[in-house]
Amino acid sequence: MDNSTLGQAGIVIAGPYLLFLGDTKSILEAKTAAGLAEWRPELCLGQFRLSGSGVDLNLPEMTPIEAVKKGVKSMIVGIAPAGGAIAGQWITAIVEAIEAGLDIVAGMHSRLSAVPEIADAAKKHGVRLIDVRHSNNSFNTGTGKKRTGRRVLTVGTDCAIGKKYAALALEKAMKERGFNADFRATGQTGIMIAGRGVAIDAVVSDFIAGAAEWLSPDNTPDHWDVIEGQGSLYHPAYSGVTLGLIHGSQPDALVICHEPVRDHILSVEGYSIPDLRTFIDLSLTVAKITNPNVIPVGVSINTSRMTVEEVEKAVIEIEAETGLPCCDPIRHGAGKIADNMQKLFGK
Amino acid sequence: MDNSTLGQAGIVIAGPYLLFLGDTKSILEAKTAAGLAEWRPELCLGQFRLSGSGVDLNLPEMTPIEAVKKGVKSMIVGIAPAGGAIAGQWITAIVEAIEAGLDIVAGMHSRLSAVPEIADAAKKHGVRLIDVRHSNNSFNTGTGKKRTGRRVLTVGTDCAIGKKYAALALEKAMKERGFNADFRATGQTGIMIAGRGVAIDAVVSDFIAGAAEWLSPDNTPDHWDVIEGQGSLYHPAYSGVTLGLIHGSQPDALVICHEPVRDHILSVEGYSIPDLRTFIDLSLTVAKITNPNVIPVGVSINTSRMTVEEVEKAVIEIEAETGLPCCDPIRHGAGKIADNMQKLFGK
Repeated sequence: MDNSTLGQAGIVIAGPYLLFLGDTKSILEAKTAAGLAEWRPELCLGQFRLSGSGVDLNLPEMTPIEAVKKGVKSMIVGIAPAGGAIAGQWITAIVEAIEAGLDIVAGMHSRLSAVPEIADAAKKHGVRLIDVRHSNNSFNTGTGKKRTGRRVLTVGTDCAIGKKYAALALEKAMKERGFNADFRATGQTGIMIAGRGVAIDAVVSDFIAGAAEWLSPDNTPDHWDVIEGQGSLYHPAYSGVTLGLIHGSQPDALVICHEPVRDHILSVEGYSIPDLRTFIDLSLTVAKITNPNVIPVGVSINTSRMTVEEVEKAVIEIEAETGLPCCDPIRHGAGKIADNMQKLFGK
Repeated sequence: MDNSTLGQAGIVIAGPYLLFLGDTKSILEAKTAAGLAEWRPELCLGQFRLSGSGVDLNLPEMTPIEAVKKGVKSMIVGIAPAGGAIAGQWITAIVEAIEAGLDIVAGMHSRLSAVPEIADAAKKHGVRLIDVRHSNNSFNTGTGKKRTGRRVLTVGTDCAIGKKYAALALEKAMKERGFNADFRATGQTGIMIAGRGVAIDAVVSDFIAGAAEWLSPDNTPDHWDVIEGQGSLYHPAYSGVTLGLIHGSQPDALVICHEPVRDHILSVEGYSIPDLRTFIDLSLTVAKITNPNVIPVGVSINTSRMTVEEVEKAVIEIEAETGLPCCDPIRHGAGKIADNMQKLFGK
């Protein structure tokens, strides 16, 4: 533990974007690009596909040169290559975008700069290669200092339960109600959507809270950061990331993310999902360490494996159990939660 | 969060050691070397000092060549250079040790390999440069799987409160009572003392729990890992490291480290030290997520700023408040806590 060393990096991406879809045939492989087109349509000026592509995001087809003429600044590699390595056909397309003058943004395991053709072209044409999974900039360790402005953080009973989606839906619902609100990204897809952020699980552990502090700096008193949560306090692999993010975020409000029909923590054996009251109690206990005034403002449920009837029943039960508004942001939007925030905090 | 990527590194150091003291005049600057000589005298065959040195650990004076003849395998740079950079006179001495065939182990901010003369000599002579603050090996993410053998972890109401010392004193007291126990190091000085370990705060945050699992692997049923804690659940900068270490360690027993006369969390403003009952409750609540059977076994107090009378009073008060044996490992050793473990767990 040492205040004088520095950790890893925040990322800032220049928009608008051209979405590179390669030759993928799977919408699942193109999840990041699809998320961008859903949540930031105004930033996605076009799609760039190779022959053989089977995914269409209904954006104008564009070559990198055409995109530059329209004002595009970055090409987003919004797909995960099978096997993790960047394939030959893709390299040619990425180099073409670099030669047109676009920054390249990717969220792959391997770094863009690990491909010599890409690294050489980027150097020659003076564009940035941005690997949102990795990052070389620096953070300080956390200070714990109270910051101006307000913050709401999504926390979950497990990983992969809808924390990013809940935050994005809440940002939308808050803006619709006149809140001054900004989504703050802590994972790769979120960073591409927000155009900035920090891949918090890639930060050296001494700097988790410091990175979270960087992500939601001082702001005007009426401003809300809507922060994407990561991991879970109950996940035996990722709880450290979660607690560091909670403490650095100093949230005023927590949105509880939960999947009513999930029994066990993902990708580990023998861990049950906590019940909601227990989960909310622990989340508040630890969050109060850096913000004694934190309160829960709603429950966001993931109902992708439930029928309409089951969802209706779950909403009623959860609202009775927790005393909080409950909704599925995909089915219902997050208006209920934003309304509750308006009631509790004003605007 | 991704199971397929890998994080940073565990460290294993070859003993016995030659302790390099440079030309330092301050025993505080030589804290790491002094800790090694205190806790692992059998590993410290000699000291190597430069002209102008004012520190003497009462070890035989030895040049690197003499040390190699005695069987020494590693030279420990057990001092922190003023300003962080490695000075000219030191470089000459380190290169001399490399030429004699010794691995070099250091815990400085700058890497040994960042000094070209040192890097070149190490390459030429085939020795290892081990920077215990940094590490390039790999961990997996945590699995949460129950491991065989038993574990005790020191947790603290703050940073720099005596968690390493408590663990070392407990290992000693346990061994004296016939326990099969090993100290497990999570910080730089601890790693040098143990000869292996992981600088847990330097691990990428996705791998904190995985690194802790690596540190205390499956063992025989009677074996105890005595794990050095880091940070504090109540420290707004470092709590993520602490929780990841707790969850990966899956401790059966917790030793609570506390300084009775400390009011505020170190190096941040406006954070109070929690009271002991609150602290023990939260520690148990989170530790139970990966080991439902965890119990507290004792309170280790840091009384460096207290009189003998104050210490006696504090021990009585803390034992009454917590129902746990309380001692200062520096004044009293940790025998009381080891006795309690014998009572609670057998041996």
